[in-house]
Amino acid sequence: MTDRETERTRAVVRQYFERMGEREWAGFGDLLAVDVRYELPQTNELITGRERLVQFNQEYPGDWSFEVTRLIADGTTAAGSMNFKVGTEEMVALVYFEVADGLITRITDFWPEQYEPPAGREHLVERSPNGLDRFTMDD
Amino acid sequence: MTDRETERTRAVVRQYFERMGEREWAGFGDLLAVDVRYELPQTNELITGRERLVQFNQEYPGDWSFEVTRLIADGTTAAGSMNFKVGTEEMVALVYFEVADGLITRITDFWPEQYEPPAGREHLVERSPNGLDRFTMDD
Repeated sequence: MTDRETERTRAVVRQYFERMGEREWAGFGDLLAVDVRYELPQTNELITGRERLVQFNQEYPGDWSFEVTRLIADGTTAAGSMNFKVGTEEMVALVYFEVADGLITRITDFWPEQYEPPAGREHLVERSPNGLDRFTMDD
Repeated sequence: MTDRETERTRAVVRQYFERMGEREWAGFGDLLAVDVRYELPQTNELITGRERLVQFNQEYPGDWSFEVTRLIADGTTAAGSMNFKVGTEEMVALVYFEVADGLITRITDFWPEQYEPPAGREHLVERSPNGLDRFTMDD
């Protein structure tokens, strides 16, 4: 049994992903608090307000699609992850949410990039032949 | 009210962070399943097994310290984030956990890096004067 607040958070975050995937922008905006904060810590970018955030998503360039790989909800907070495709490029998106009164008040989005492993740990590590973290929630 | 499984997951992840911070490596190992998987998707690196993972952490170079900024627990899964310092360098670490029978069975670790924002969204975005995501759990 999980508590009601957690289930409410899970529901709104699930809808966030669904409506984004369907480009259902009016309904997407309905999930956001009027003064929602959207943070991109890797670039120190900040978008404030529902209208701007809807526009940002609507204008996001490229032929993108995604699948949700994690949705972890806990009271008024949640974490999600996505495998994202833009054209032929694949990315992982990691996102944190804060929710109040059933609306999303804060989103923090990370886009980690691939890099070469540092030397000195080869005795402990194997390289995975396929990209890790490329799976669906049903796996 | 939150369910027991979630609280058990939260407790083991909290101890994971505490014992790592204290370099209490024997106790750190006690939190891990014998066949724990540690994944670094950005480099396609994989470490398998409790002993290797303890050694990896023990040998991790540099004078590092961290503070936990998020701990989101949900049934047998959890997400955490940390502000990490190695010498004067600051990083954010994003980590996902899977737990079974009170032991951590899978850890997926991301280290997103800073980058310059792409052009074309200046009309929606402001730049934060200070680094975003530099806060503690008590904020």
